Order: sequence, then C-alpha cells, then structure tokens
Amino acid sequence: MAADQLSVTFAALADPTRRAILARVAQGEATVLELAEPFQLKLPTVSKHLKVLRQAGLITQGRQAQWRPCRLEPAPLRDVAEWVERYRKTWEDRMGQLSDYLRELEDKEDTDDREE
Amino acid sequence: MAADQLSVTFAALADPTRRAILARVAQGEATVLELAEPFQLKLPTVSKHLKVLRQAGLITQGRQAQWRPCRLEPAPLRDVAEWVERYRKTWEDRMGQLSDYLRELEDKEDTDDREE
Repeated sequence: MAADQLSVTFAALADPTRRAILARVAQGEATVLELAEPFQLKLPTVSKHLKVLRQAGLITQGRQAQWRPCRLEPAPLRDVAEWVERYRKTWEDRMGQLSDYLRELEDKEDTDDREE
Repeated sequence: MAADQLSVTFAALADPTRRAILARVAQGEATVLELAEPFQLKLPTVSKHLKVLRQAGLITQGRQAQWRPCRLEPAPLRDVAEWVERYRKTWEDRMGQLSDYLRELEDKEDTDDREE
C-alpha cells in the first residue's frame, strides 16, 4: 500500500534535525552547505534528510548542481494544522477540567483555613 | 539518544490506522474490542498500535484486564498544534502570493479581451 500523504509528512517530521532544517529554510532559501554547517553534519547525512523532506513535499531544491538551494514548501504543514485542529476542543476541555479541579482545591483550602 | 517527545508523537501519527483510532477515542472511551471491529483488525495488531500510541502519551488505558478502555490524552496534540503554528505565516503568505498571481492573470486576460 502506498503511504498516504499525511503519514509521509508525519514520518518526515519525526526527526529533530529535519525539523531544524525546516526552521532554517523558513527564514529563507539555504544551500546544502549552509544547512550542513550549523548542525555539524556530513554532507551525505544532510542529503539523506533533504531527500526525505523533498519526498514529503516539504521542500523543493533548485537545479544548480553545487548549490541546490532549498526552499520551504508549507502546504503539507497547513494539512498537519488542519488535521490537528479537530482535537483542539478536546485539549481545551481537558485543560478547562484541570483548572476547574485546581480552583475547587483552592476553594476547599480557603474554607479549611477559615474553619481552623 | 533518546527520541525527543515531539519526534515520538510525529512517528506515532505517521500511520492512518493509529490516526483513525485517535479519531474514535476522541468520541469517547473505547475498549480494545470496540477499536478492532470497525478496522477489521486482529487483536494483536490493535494492541501493537495501542502500544505505540500509549508510549507517545496519546492514549491511556484502564486496568480492567479484558476491556482496558482507551482514552485520548490530547496534550501531545496540543504540542503538535503549537509547533506547526509557527509556519502559519509562511503558508498564508504563499497562498496570498498565489492568489495575487491568479488575479494578475485574470486582469491580463480581461485587458487582452478588451483589446481584441
């Protein structure tokens, strides 16, 4: 079975170096050399990460052989945002329950203090 | 190196069956049997997916041996939303550029039509 696009995107994002590369190219185009340097990575390692990001459609690379500037392609990230938004109500409700519970504890403490 | 939390979350989300299980438990607690049925999965397969979701902190499971009801834990999803939000400006700008370009094309066509 061919992996669905969202699974390919999530798999590409499941690596801190690849997320750092995305953060860098979000600031502007960067060559492979410029990407390798701050991470102290060997070029073949960077190339491997760039291939994964390219296959997920998260970056495109220019044609100039030596430089191959990388550019962020944000469309898959918008899809991730849309996917995760459906759970916003769940986490907001859960946080709400937690703060209700903390408030109850506080109220109870205040009452206990007054009763002492 | 221990995988960072966000990488573990993204890896857990990189599978359509696991995302479908999350969508189901977002509707309310579900037993392993209830999760297996709609996906026509064998119980060991469901258990394997649940283990990945549990290790990523995306679900918790009750103790009752046979039922082990699964509950969504939305905190890691909130972290994904926060992570992806930083790219919102990039995709909105890119969509803006695209619609500017399409408007220019339309204007040009209108001009061309009038000149004919």
